[in-house]
Amino acid sequence: MIGEYQFYLGGEFCSSDEKLAVINPYTGKVFANTSMAGNLELDKAIDKASAVKEDLIDFPSGKKYNILMQIAAGIKDAREEFAGIIVAESAKPIRYARGEVDRAIQTFIVAAEEAKRLPGEYLDMEWTAPGEGKEAIVRYFPVGLVAGIAPFNFPLNLAVHKLAPAIASGCPIILKPSSSTPLTTLRLAQIIDRTDLPKGAVSIIPMNRETGNSMVSDDRFALLTFTGSPAVGWKMKSNAGKKKVVLELGGNAGLIVTESADLDKAVAKSLVGSFAYSGQVCIHTQRILVHKDVFDEFTAKFIEGVQKFRSGDPTDESTEISAMIDEDNAKRVEEWVREAAKGGAKVLAGGKRDGGYFEPTVLTNTKNSMKVCSLEIFGPVVTIEKYTEFDRALTYINDSRYGLQAGVFTNTITEMNAAFRHLEVGGIMINDIPGFRVDHMPYGGVKDSGFGREGVKYSMHDMLEPRLLVKDK
Amino acid sequence: MIGEYQFYLGGEFCSSDEKLAVINPYTGKVFANTSMAGNLELDKAIDKASAVKEDLIDFPSGKKYNILMQIAAGIKDAREEFAGIIVAESAKPIRYARGEVDRAIQTFIVAAEEAKRLPGEYLDMEWTAPGEGKEAIVRYFPVGLVAGIAPFNFPLNLAVHKLAPAIASGCPIILKPSSSTPLTTLRLAQIIDRTDLPKGAVSIIPMNRETGNSMVSDDRFALLTFTGSPAVGWKMKSNAGKKKVVLELGGNAGLIVTESADLDKAVAKSLVGSFAYSGQVCIHTQRILVHKDVFDEFTAKFIEGVQKFRSGDPTDESTEISAMIDEDNAKRVEEWVREAAKGGAKVLAGGKRDGGYFEPTVLTNTKNSMKVCSLEIFGPVVTIEKYTEFDRALTYINDSRYGLQAGVFTNTITEMNAAFRHLEVGGIMINDIPGFRVDHMPYGGVKDSGFGREGVKYSMHDMLEPRLLVKDK
Amino acid sequence: MIGEYQFYLGGEFCSSDEKLAVINPYTGKVFANTSMAGNLELDKAIDKASAVKEDLIDFPSGKKYNILMQIAAGIKDAREEFAGIIVAESAKPIRYARGEVDRAIQTFIVAAEEAKRLPGEYLDMEWTAPGEGKEAIVRYFPVGLVAGIAPFNFPLNLAVHKLAPAIASGCPIILKPSSSTPLTTLRLAQIIDRTDLPKGAVSIIPMNRETGNSMVSDDRFALLTFTGSPAVGWKMKSNAGKKKVVLELGGNAGLIVTESADLDKAVAKSLVGSFAYSGQVCIHTQRILVHKDVFDEFTAKFIEGVQKFRSGDPTDESTEISAMIDEDNAKRVEEWVREAAKGGAKVLAGGKRDGGYFEPTVLTNTKNSMKVCSLEIFGPVVTIEKYTEFDRALTYINDSRYGLQAGVFTNTITEMNAAFRHLEVGGIMINDIPGFRVDHMPYGGVKDSGFGREGVKYSMHDMLEPRLLVKDK
Amino acid sequence: MIGEYQFYLGGEFCSSDEKLAVINPYTGKVFANTSMAGNLELDKAIDKASAVKEDLIDFPSGKKYNILMQIAAGIKDAREEFAGIIVAESAKPIRYARGEVDRAIQTFIVAAEEAKRLPGEYLDMEWTAPGEGKEAIVRYFPVGLVAGIAPFNFPLNLAVHKLAPAIASGCPIILKPSSSTPLTTLRLAQIIDRTDLPKGAVSIIPMNRETGNSMVSDDRFALLTFTGSPAVGWKMKSNAGKKKVVLELGGNAGLIVTESADLDKAVAKSLVGSFAYSGQVCIHTQRILVHKDVFDEFTAKFIEGVQKFRSGDPTDESTEISAMIDEDNAKRVEEWVREAAKGGAKVLAGGKRDGGYFEPTVLTNTKNSMKVCSLEIFGPVVTIEKYTEFDRALTYINDSRYGLQAGVFTNTITEMNAAFRHLEVGGIMINDIPGFRVDHMPYGGVKDSGFGREGVKYSMHDMLEPRLLVKDK
Repeated sequence: MIGEYQFYLGGEFCSSDEKLAVINPYTGKVFANTSMAGNLELDKAIDKASAVKEDLIDFPSGKKYNILMQIAAGIKDAREEFAGIIVAESAKPIRYARGEVDRAIQTFIVAAEEAKRLPGEYLDMEWTAPGEGKEAIVRYFPVGLVAGIAPFNFPLNLAVHKLAPAIASGCPIILKPSSSTPLTTLRLAQIIDRTDLPKGAVSIIPMNRETGNSMVSDDRFALLTFTGSPAVGWKMKSNAGKKKVVLELGGNAGLIVTESADLDKAVAKSLVGSFAYSGQVCIHTQRILVHKDVFDEFTAKFIEGVQKFRSGDPTDESTEISAMIDEDNAKRVEEWVREAAKGGAKVLAGGKRDGGYFEPTVLTNTKNSMKVCSLEIFGPVVTIEKYTEFDRALTYINDSRYGLQAGVFTNTITEMNAAFRHLEVGGIMINDIPGFRVDHMPYGGVKDSGFGREGVKYSMHDMLEPRLLVKDK
Repeated sequence: MIGEYQFYLGGEFCSSDEKLAVINPYTGKVFANTSMAGNLELDKAIDKASAVKEDLIDFPSGKKYNILMQIAAGIKDAREEFAGIIVAESAKPIRYARGEVDRAIQTFIVAAEEAKRLPGEYLDMEWTAPGEGKEAIVRYFPVGLVAGIAPFNFPLNLAVHKLAPAIASGCPIILKPSSSTPLTTLRLAQIIDRTDLPKGAVSIIPMNRETGNSMVSDDRFALLTFTGSPAVGWKMKSNAGKKKVVLELGGNAGLIVTESADLDKAVAKSLVGSFAYSGQVCIHTQRILVHKDVFDEFTAKFIEGVQKFRSGDPTDESTEISAMIDEDNAKRVEEWVREAAKGGAKVLAGGKRDGGYFEPTVLTNTKNSMKVCSLEIFGPVVTIEKYTEFDRALTYINDSRYGLQAGVFTNTITEMNAAFRHLEVGGIMINDIPGFRVDHMPYGGVKDSGFGREGVKYSMHDMLEPRLLVKDK
Repeated sequence: MIGEYQFYLGGEFCSSDEKLAVINPYTGKVFANTSMAGNLELDKAIDKASAVKEDLIDFPSGKKYNILMQIAAGIKDAREEFAGIIVAESAKPIRYARGEVDRAIQTFIVAAEEAKRLPGEYLDMEWTAPGEGKEAIVRYFPVGLVAGIAPFNFPLNLAVHKLAPAIASGCPIILKPSSSTPLTTLRLAQIIDRTDLPKGAVSIIPMNRETGNSMVSDDRFALLTFTGSPAVGWKMKSNAGKKKVVLELGGNAGLIVTESADLDKAVAKSLVGSFAYSGQVCIHTQRILVHKDVFDEFTAKFIEGVQKFRSGDPTDESTEISAMIDEDNAKRVEEWVREAAKGGAKVLAGGKRDGGYFEPTVLTNTKNSMKVCSLEIFGPVVTIEKYTEFDRALTYINDSRYGLQAGVFTNTITEMNAAFRHLEVGGIMINDIPGFRVDHMPYGGVKDSGFGREGVKYSMHDMLEPRLLVKDK
Repeated sequence: MIGEYQFYLGGEFCSSDEKLAVINPYTGKVFANTSMAGNLELDKAIDKASAVKEDLIDFPSGKKYNILMQIAAGIKDAREEFAGIIVAESAKPIRYARGEVDRAIQTFIVAAEEAKRLPGEYLDMEWTAPGEGKEAIVRYFPVGLVAGIAPFNFPLNLAVHKLAPAIASGCPIILKPSSSTPLTTLRLAQIIDRTDLPKGAVSIIPMNRETGNSMVSDDRFALLTFTGSPAVGWKMKSNAGKKKVVLELGGNAGLIVTESADLDKAVAKSLVGSFAYSGQVCIHTQRILVHKDVFDEFTAKFIEGVQKFRSGDPTDESTEISAMIDEDNAKRVEEWVREAAKGGAKVLAGGKRDGGYFEPTVLTNTKNSMKVCSLEIFGPVVTIEKYTEFDRALTYINDSRYGLQAGVFTNTITEMNAAFRHLEVGGIMINDIPGFRVDHMPYGGVKDSGFGREGVKYSMHDMLEPRLLVKDK
């Protein structure tokens, strides 16, 4: 884990002169080094990728299956090592780090299976006279070279959600991991390299900003898939030229707890949704709305739960919350909470910062115009407010520029239906938190929260191009 | 409407020596005549059908679409005439007769659309080494000649549910309508005959019992599709030889009204479900279970509704209930009600017979062993009982040899889920009666209620045979 | 046909001060007038569209079906009138104009059917432990307001390919027809207006360039769907902001005639592919490659066919080729042919211009660098060249920045397979011309020929946004 | 391998008093013993199966996946042992035995994946007014207890094609292996037993004929799936009562070699198709038709190939052909060949018997009425005949009561299309033998060759029952 990591370029492990020191956010110390690619290395990776493009088109699905299953098995064998790297470079508590590794394994398994299930179609052409005597087939071909850009918060699984579908689709991919957390995917590269995947099909390379930008605009890429912040993402779309674009951005996810909810379950899940990995999660529960009849009970139990949180060293098995990714972010969160408090919000729990660590914080009496409500906080902060009518609760959730996922705890059919019909989000979780995700479901946001969907099969949809064959019958 | 009807054999309208007088069940008088085929006519129809079999395979889907849409339009143009024939031969009140005609139109429209959407597939063959370099297509071919046997209670639409899918699938079909209500489909034959459908593809012929039985066992038919009583249906399955069999039989459908139900809606719909067309409906609501907290209110309102029913001449626009199909059936219902009363059941409303007319009847305090509970009553009788625990209500519904459809009025998610998971039926209607059906949904029973599904696309599934083509890629 | 046409804005027919005279390209004379919207009118149309957005989400599919079928019937009733307007504003020979009207009818019928078949999904969530006890549904919601921009060459059907799927999907749409040929869709607006479609759901408005550009960049639109030239289309993509973009552009479609081809059929179809509507067709056959063994025979028969073409008045039943859309375009074509001739190309037929009319022209001995080969000519010009090896013919077709559709006349399985595997296009037509299209098939190009697919169901895919509901099971 | 085997009843390994000695067909000696269940044991197995029925319905798909993958891995680990048992009990040459084991592994993997992909549906209910405001879901539930009856010729994989889909579908299954070859599946039972599959879900029990017949008629089974001879199969269908029936029977598969075929490939594949495992294969190539222009060349090469076959001990790596399953069968084949020779057929190769061994035999000048043509020979015999017109070759293939699979070696599109359109079989293999099968493709015959399809997903279709939930939207 400690030491020197090389990047993976066109089937070779190599280094560049532009060094990148990787800091452990909990200790604040550099614990490993790697290096970043410039445009020269990027060009080389693109060339290698282009050279295998044709081979990948003809790659039988069974072989792709075997390779992807081998990668899944490889990660499983090195589960603890992967979890350890995640902890070290991201300060994610070990219990969550292990969960992320398990999901990455599952993501590769799902991709292996989907590789055998590309969506070919048979079409009847005889609907009108000009098509009589004809039939058609649609086969799906890899769209071409993919540019993947992954974030720091799930350094393994959110990268895997680009790598695995690309391999399954037969697209070469060049992945830029986050500069804060590049090591997990570099370790993954070693596993990939041991398979029969043609060299050049996958490159994993930390990049400086300039080279990252080149990747966005370069027309040799057919698809850009980015997971990160809305501000950065939407700008990329305009600079993307002729390529396809998929954006997985963030939000200020809302959760409604109704009077028919199982309150204990709602509290337990909300605590995880609000504070797991210090809220540095795209679908972090940021805004909770509780029906007036159960508001006091819910809030009391919730605060009680907050107070029991164990913070500290992320390598410790019992730790539930640790340092944020860096002090700058902790300061930003502190500033937003302060702004809210000044504006009249009441701090029910937490609110304090210690270096890069920020306490689990609960606010109430907030206004929608406050940053803690309207922007993506990406920190361990949640607001709890009271509502009277369910429709108004829906309106409150929708009163946002974002729309990723939402949660509703209810046992009432009409409320479930109304939530599905009216919530302007990518996904609604009944009796679960907005942060619920399994790796084969369609995942992604509407409004400013994103463009397109991930979730293996859904990612693959964007990595494939239909081609029609019309023939005599 | 009044007069002589010819049957439709291999594209020609003709008669036989075996006359069939059609009686109006309300007036009790013969109002029209037709004749029945014997084995000679059946043979001729089979020959004609066999002669067009090959042509139908090559019939372009667009042409099938046009023919089926033309039939739909033809029925629409003659809507009142069709409704009138249904009223005359079945004593179905005109309001319901019109509804049946509208559904038959819709069934042809759906079939027209599905004719263009036969389920062709493209298959990846490369999952293992022996398939490398290969791909496959599955096309669906008509299975062959279809034997259709239709019941009296929906003389048009339940026949159309066999005719329309057969035409859409490219299968020739010989339909035996009920001997009580043969005229509606014979009128339909005139519309079919005016289209470009190859002559011989559809024959519609009343038959005597012996000829009907021949149809069941004759190996020249590839599929038998029967709608009628369980006793007759299951016997057919054993005599069917090598052919496929679809059975749409009856049941003793149950309905649960929970404490979270919209009671007024539940009452209004249950009244229709229990008494429309005197309960002579496969998915007639026969057993109602009401939660103890709302039992009294529900029952009071229900009885109030029963007392407002207008009975009488089925041609009268205001009539809601009229004579049963024949006096024998009314007597059978009377007998079953009497048996229940003797056994301790309380008659809350109705219970009396007048010739072929039987009053809308409500029973309570019944036991599961009584015929009114355990057998299919096929008459205007319903039982209402009280329940305390939802799970027990589900058990009660399942305690039956039948399992067609069920209804549950509830606004509670967990109850909806439990009903879906545990009710052993073909379909569960939340906030509607067991009798809910639209013509494109899968429809059919489990246990003794049936074998296979109807509902255009689902019927077509049984009328088609997959054929695989494996080829180089 | 002759006279004043109003545009259709938010359910009302109205005019603006910015007049637009419509010229008959064959006579060169103004025969009708309409007017163009400015930004003020566009704003008003957007407001009206936004006002019905919610209503459209709840619009039952059956009602959308009825509306779309009513529009289809309305066009059918006015078939000759529509054909007449197309002839007048575009100089398309009446035989082809009628074909276009028939296809527009079919496009609405297909959309009616697809309105009932939005792609809802049921998802098993239990693949891993965190999803146990859960299930999910995906429903598809209208993406929002659609901006449609249609070209002059199929003034009716290419506009309908945006209007019909938008209505089927429940998206409001504002359509900008071509300024050269705005009348056909304005006539269509009258039919749409008579249906129960909520007012504001469809606006059809000619626009000046500035307003057209506003539509591209305005963030109130959720989707831009453009059919037109590559140069214009790709620029739009960069200016489109956060919206989705579909581009249906052109190409320089190639056709291969192999030695196993049915030559007479190949000649007959190629003549239509090369010269129908003077080649002003996105999938116009521009480059023909013929196997050396049949080159002479094919070319001789082809030239013979060219010489029999009847040119003249497009209203004349026998006319096969008439004036181009305007003299500027005819001059451009003349210039490109001249350039080719100078560079060594041999003119086998045609080559001359008379005002806006350009003769059907056949070139050989061309080089790939000539404009007649490398750019989209959008005129009645085709090149015929000889090939020896099939693989080289495929390479020749692919040696282009475009990739819309291609045709291959062959009876050899290995050639068919190689064409499907290697031709970088959206669709390959075996034994037909690149210009083959039926309205329900996926249609669209790769490389510079487009972005996304049309063909009712495929267009709808882009007009719909998935929304996931995860719930207890 | 040698020794005593217990059967697997309701999660326990046990024996009965009715002993079954297993003979090695090559040595003719008993090498192992097991015992057979009577009705008492069958009853017990049914009870155990019924007891776990409910648990299996709620079994999460991810757990079924894990169990099925564990079984696949278990077989892989014991690959050589399994191959050895197959060789010993069936005299299948080791090279083919290994292939069978590999396919069984793959069948379990496919079933694991399909367990996660049961065909749930979302249905729009709003096509007509009565469905407005409603939506529906279809989920698929296990149909109930499955009776599986497997044949001797693929003792492992043809049993697995019943076991794996049953586990994937959540149906308990009782499997009766062939009395000649019961050991492979009893070994498999040990692997299944080690997984977390609820005990009782799978029983594997050799049975005497009477008990086997009970299984056919017993109404506690919901589905009977039989692989074996046509005579036995069709009789079962009539005795099956209310249960579903799937029959995988045999045939007299035909193969056409056209003048455009790759002859060397055709010869090589035909030799395997005709003689692998002494033709004791349901899709054994029994009738070859060769175009007159290549008949002599094909036949010469084919005979040359036959003469190179290495016969002998099936445990020998080089052995290609060994003893038949028993001497009775060898004698039957001898008798049929003799009948053909008497009738005028010419024996081009082979024709002689030595105990249970029958030589690879090639006949020509046969007549369709001879048993070697019209019945399923299930032995190492093939006929080769000449044809002139392709249509006649198709007719020849169709002139049979059977229709399982067929092969056509051709490079001509029109021939491929004609074969697909006209051959009355379940599957057509272009450029391969009728015996081509991969385990995820739909497999099964028409006419007397079968009823229904296997191939994991397709088998599961019959093991599942749809259940509809209609609810408010």
